[in-house]
Amino acid sequence: MFPFEYHIPTKIMFGERKINQLGEVAATFGKKAMLVTYDEQFVKSVGFYAKAVQALNDKHVEVLPFFGVKSNPTVELIREGVKLAKTEKPDVLIAVGGGSVMDTVKALALGACTDADVWDIATGAAQATGALPIVTVVTIPATSSEMNCTSVISNDALKRKEGFVNPLMYPKVSILDPELTYSLPIKQTAISAADIVSHLMEGYINHNDPWTPMQDRFAQGMIKTVLDCMDRLLKNPNDPQARATMMWVATFAWNGFYVCGIGPFDAPIHMVGHSFSAFYDTPHGSAMSVSIPGVMKFHLKERIEKYSIFAKEVFGIAGDINEKTAQAGIDALVGWFKKIGVPTTFAEAQMPTNELDAMADDILVTAAHWGIKTYTKEMVLRLLQLCL
Amino acid sequence: MFPFEYHIPTKIMFGERKINQLGEVAATFGKKAMLVTYDEQFVKSVGFYAKAVQALNDKHVEVLPFFGVKSNPTVELIREGVKLAKTEKPDVLIAVGGGSVMDTVKALALGACTDADVWDIATGAAQATGALPIVTVVTIPATSSEMNCTSVISNDALKRKEGFVNPLMYPKVSILDPELTYSLPIKQTAISAADIVSHLMEGYINHNDPWTPMQDRFAQGMIKTVLDCMDRLLKNPNDPQARATMMWVATFAWNGFYVCGIGPFDAPIHMVGHSFSAFYDTPHGSAMSVSIPGVMKFHLKERIEKYSIFAKEVFGIAGDINEKTAQAGIDALVGWFKKIGVPTTFAEAQMPTNELDAMADDILVTAAHWGIKTYTKEMVLRLLQLCL
Repeated sequence: MFPFEYHIPTKIMFGERKINQLGEVAATFGKKAMLVTYDEQFVKSVGFYAKAVQALNDKHVEVLPFFGVKSNPTVELIREGVKLAKTEKPDVLIAVGGGSVMDTVKALALGACTDADVWDIATGAAQATGALPIVTVVTIPATSSEMNCTSVISNDALKRKEGFVNPLMYPKVSILDPELTYSLPIKQTAISAADIVSHLMEGYINHNDPWTPMQDRFAQGMIKTVLDCMDRLLKNPNDPQARATMMWVATFAWNGFYVCGIGPFDAPIHMVGHSFSAFYDTPHGSAMSVSIPGVMKFHLKERIEKYSIFAKEVFGIAGDINEKTAQAGIDALVGWFKKIGVPTTFAEAQMPTNELDAMADDILVTAAHWGIKTYTKEMVLRLLQLCL
Repeated sequence: MFPFEYHIPTKIMFGERKINQLGEVAATFGKKAMLVTYDEQFVKSVGFYAKAVQALNDKHVEVLPFFGVKSNPTVELIREGVKLAKTEKPDVLIAVGGGSVMDTVKALALGACTDADVWDIATGAAQATGALPIVTVVTIPATSSEMNCTSVISNDALKRKEGFVNPLMYPKVSILDPELTYSLPIKQTAISAADIVSHLMEGYINHNDPWTPMQDRFAQGMIKTVLDCMDRLLKNPNDPQARATMMWVATFAWNGFYVCGIGPFDAPIHMVGHSFSAFYDTPHGSAMSVSIPGVMKFHLKERIEKYSIFAKEVFGIAGDINEKTAQAGIDALVGWFKKIGVPTTFAEAQMPTNELDAMADDILVTAAHWGIKTYTKEMVLRLLQLCL
C-alpha cells in the first residue's frame, strides 16, 4: 500500500423525501441561496425544482434561481453565474441536479471568490482563494461529485474539457433523496451506470500495486452491485431499492475512498473519454462505455492477471488466469453495456472518425494536465482505433 | 435501504513514518499537547513514545504525558486525566495507542469541558457540552476508534463496561503509521483481527434489510481481507503489506460506513461480549471470538440464507442455501479463530461459568442502554450456554 490522506468533510443526508430538509440545511449558511439547476422549463416539469423551492421558502431562505446547466457544462455559463453571484452575494450555492450541475456550482463557488477567470482556475493558470459554501441535491446519481472536490467543465470556444480538483469544492452537505431519481429515464440511468462503472474501473484496472485486496474487492463488489441494480431497473425503472442503492454506490465510486493506498495510477479511461465529449458533446457515461473497452483491449497483454480476476469475480466467468479469461472479462463487460443500451464503439455512439488525429492531440493535452506520461501520440491513435 | 446520515470529519494521514508529522499536526491546535498512552515503561521500551515526543519537540509543542492506560480502560484513570487536563489546560489531546487509549482520550476530551462526571456522560445521565480537540496515533489497528465517535470505557467499581457515542469525539486527525504495528505480537494481532471481524459481522449478520448488496459485499470483502492479512502475518509478522492493509481495514470496519442504509440492527455480539470483559477483563477481541459463534448459533434457524451466503462468499464453501451450508459457515469461522489462536468458548478463554446468571443481568443492562429489545433473560442464558 502507498501513503495517502483521506478527508471528506461533506455531510451526507440520505433517504426518501430528504429534499424537504433543504431549507433547514441552507438556513445554517444564511438567508439567501443561489439555486443552480437545468433548463427552467425542464426542472419545473419534473417536480424537484418546486420541492427545493418549497423547502427553502418554508425556512424563509430567499431563492435566487440560476437555470440553464446542460450536460458537459460550459465555462461560458459558469461565467454568467459568477457575475450573478458577485452582484447578488448569496450565502450558499445549491446545486439541484446531476454531475453537470454540481460541477457548475463547484466552479462557480471558486469563481465568485476571486477576480481570476474560472477557466484559468480549471487549467491551473490561476489559483482559487476561497469558495462560497456548497450544498447539493442529487437528481442523477453518477459522478460522485456530491462527495468529492472535483469539477469537470467544458470550454466550447476552445473545444476542451477540463477536470480539476480543489478541497475548497467539497460540498458542505449533500442531500441524496432516491425518490428524485425514480423518474429518471432508463436510457439516462444506463448512461449513469456506465459512468459509475468507469469510476470503479479507472483505479481498479490501472493501479500497479500488486496486493490491494481491500480496494480491489471494494471495486469488484461495487461493480457487481451496479449490475444488480440495472437488472432490477430494466425490469422496473421505479424499483425503490435499486434506485436507492445505485445512488449510494454512485457516491462512493469516485469520492476518493477506494483509491486510497493503491498509489498513483494513470486515468486513461477518462483521459480518452473526455475528448469524446469535448469533440461531439457525447454524454459523459456514453463516452466512458466507449473508452473502457478500448483501454482494456489496449492494455490486455500486460494485465492478464488483473482482467482474469475481474472476469471471475465480477462476471463469474470460470477459467484460469490467462489471456482467454482476461478477454472474456472484456467481452462480458461489453455485453453488459450492450444489454443496458449504452454505446461501446464510435459507431454505436454515432461519433465521426475523421478527426482522430486532432482528438489524439487533445487527449495528450489532458494527459499533460493530469501528469500522465505513459502515452505517446502513436499509442493514443492505436488506442482510439480499438474504440472504433 | 433505510435513511441515514454519514459525516466523518476526521482527516486520515496514512503511511509509514507518518508519525513524524505529529508535531505539525499538533501545532495547528496550539503549543501544549497532553499525550495519553499506555504504561510508561512499556511505551518507552517499544519506541513509538520516543518518536511521538520527538515529532512534537521538533515543532516546539510542549508535551504533557499521561501514562497508564490499560486494556478495557477505566473511568477511574480517565477521571485522573480529566483532573490533569483541567489544571494544565492542554490545547490538544493526543492518543498514542490502540482502542483503549483512543477511547480514554475521547472520554477525557468530553470530561475536560464539563463539571459532570465522565461516567455519567458515558451512561447518558449527563450531557457533554464540548470537547478538547483529539488527535490519534494508532499503534493497534482494531477498533475503528480513530475514525468514529464511539468510546467504550469500564467502571471497575460497578463491574460495568459502557459504550457511548458523541460526534464531539471524532478525532480531528488520525495518523495511521503501519510501521508502528510491525512489532505487535502475533497473539495480540490475532485478537485485534477477531475484533475487526466482530465489527464487520455485527451489522452484516444482524440487519434485517432483505436487499443491501453494496453493504453486504463490503462486509464480506473486508472479512476476506482480514483472513488474507492474517495468513500472511502468521507466516511473517513483519509483512509490511499485510500490516498496512489490516490497519486500513480496521479503520473502515466500524466507522459507520458499511452500516449506512442497512437500518436499525441489534448488536448482540458486542452486547454479550462486553460483559465477558466487564466480568473477567477478557481482552475485547477475545470476548468477540467467543460471542460471535454463540450469537450465530443462537440465531441459526432464522438466518439460514444469510449464513449460507456468508459461508459461500467468505469461505468459498460450496452448497445450497440451507442449514448445512449455514452451519458450515459458522464452523469455518470458528476454525479460523482457532487457526489464528483466539478463544472460541468460555473454556478456551479461561472464563469461569459460575456467574452466568449475574452476567445475563449485566447483558440486559447493556441491552437496555443500547435500545435492544429482542432478548429476554431466558434467551440470554440460552445464548450464553452456546458460548461455553
